[in-house]
Amino acid sequence: MEQGSNEMEKMKYTDKLAEGFDRTASIVCVGLDPVLEKIPISEKDPEEKIIRFFGALVDAMSTQKIVNTVKPNYAYYAQYGFEGLRALKEVIEIAREAGFLVILDAKRGDIAATADAYAKEVFDFWEADAVTVNPYLGRDSVEPFLKHCERGKGVYVLAKTSNPGASDFQDLKVDGNNAYEKVMQKFLDPLVEGTGFVMGATYPEELKNVQNLIQGKSIPLLIPGIGTQGGSVKDIVNALNPDELQFSRINSAKGIIYAKSDGDWLKDSLDAIKKLDS
Amino acid sequence: MEQGSNEMEKMKYTDKLAEGFDRTASIVCVGLDPVLEKIPISEKDPEEKIIRFFGALVDAMSTQKIVNTVKPNYAYYAQYGFEGLRALKEVIEIAREAGFLVILDAKRGDIAATADAYAKEVFDFWEADAVTVNPYLGRDSVEPFLKHCERGKGVYVLAKTSNPGASDFQDLKVDGNNAYEKVMQKFLDPLVEGTGFVMGATYPEELKNVQNLIQGKSIPLLIPGIGTQGGSVKDIVNALNPDELQFSRINSAKGIIYAKSDGDWLKDSLDAIKKLDS
Repeated sequence: MEQGSNEMEKMKYTDKLAEGFDRTASIVCVGLDPVLEKIPISEKDPEEKIIRFFGALVDAMSTQKIVNTVKPNYAYYAQYGFEGLRALKEVIEIAREAGFLVILDAKRGDIAATADAYAKEVFDFWEADAVTVNPYLGRDSVEPFLKHCERGKGVYVLAKTSNPGASDFQDLKVDGNNAYEKVMQKFLDPLVEGTGFVMGATYPEELKNVQNLIQGKSIPLLIPGIGTQGGSVKDIVNALNPDELQFSRINSAKGIIYAKSDGDWLKDSLDAIKKLDS
Repeated sequence: MEQGSNEMEKMKYTDKLAEGFDRTASIVCVGLDPVLEKIPISEKDPEEKIIRFFGALVDAMSTQKIVNTVKPNYAYYAQYGFEGLRALKEVIEIAREAGFLVILDAKRGDIAATADAYAKEVFDFWEADAVTVNPYLGRDSVEPFLKHCERGKGVYVLAKTSNPGASDFQDLKVDGNNAYEKVMQKFLDPLVEGTGFVMGATYPEELKNVQNLIQGKSIPLLIPGIGTQGGSVKDIVNALNPDELQFSRINSAKGIIYAKSDGDWLKDSLDAIKKLDS
């Protein structure tokens, strides 16, 4: 176990993504976002409820080898105060011990000295494998996160997000390009291996266009916005370069973890994953 | 008036800023950013060390009535894990009980459903008076924070930050304007009272220019980047519209809290505040 995690520490983040893809033949990333009222197990203590729910799901996904990456979003835990934060710590530990890559969706970003502290938070305290970061403050604000790539960590820079308001600033026209393309260019040259991008599923055409920017560069893509937000998996997979599929992850949270209809919630969630990945 | 008029009168965030300014004649905001090695008190337990240090400072600032606003940056606490996070909770409580406005510098931002959870984190769990938010995801990602303005909360949208990399995206030219001006315009129309902006002190000329955008609108400005980052207080105050000085806060952290030379640290810190504000 100890040796195994040391081995993992030596792997680049892109290698970890490729290994996970080989092992499970899946590009689905399961969003582990707790909403207490929706969690279909009876348990009064909020912390325990979150841990038991995601613990059972992680366990089943691991046994069935159908997924290799999970993405807890910090905000959903933090809304429940210290009980939620303690649950986040535990969920990350459970998922990593079960062999999952853990992307902490925290959209961090600050000036360099502060970003250093954020990188410590994300990689040393929460012990995530990767994190989402917001590029608005410029490349120097992201560098403190990128320093951790050499020890196998991944850093997803927000390019184009999946929400309607994404167009407000990300699509501003700059010298004939969209602002989000300028953002991508700034991180592609020079490129630190382990740098990835968040690219909303709600824009399959644009997803196709960005393939030209990242072609042959082993760039991790994190693609939110399928299901409730409107994107379809088939459109996305068609838009992606087949050689680089292994580095991409399509995220779904609500559609999987709260899939329960009238049967067994765990079976319903696993079925939702399989349906998504078929 | 809405039906809430019969309830206890709630002050708007801008009124709170004006009241603090009247009370202390100060526009200094003290950044409460813990760096354990720099804290000049002997105490082994990290949580206790942070709380005692900032507790003593808050107490002295309150007694001397020289400051009315403090700004803990979330990252500096989170880098120390749960001990740091518990200290953050306590520091905010101590500061608010002593009558200070607390701006939680957390640079939050996510799609609307998630931003809702972040707003709960910031205003209901940490119980901050105001928060810094990152606008990259667009106006709809900030709306969940703005909803809290009607109960007296403040929301500082990052416009132009004080770091060198700020120019990477914030200064991209869009129809002859800087991207950060586009950001400001998006939040000025329609304007939710309580919306403010972060505007780095490193650009006194630009600070002057944005006065035209915000003239007469009672817009809170949070101005970081003096001292170590290069801006001067005099330049800033000269650039600000005198009528709206009361809504502005110039932030300084390291230059105040770690001012200790060879004397009493508390006296050195208080002197640094007075010097800054003179």
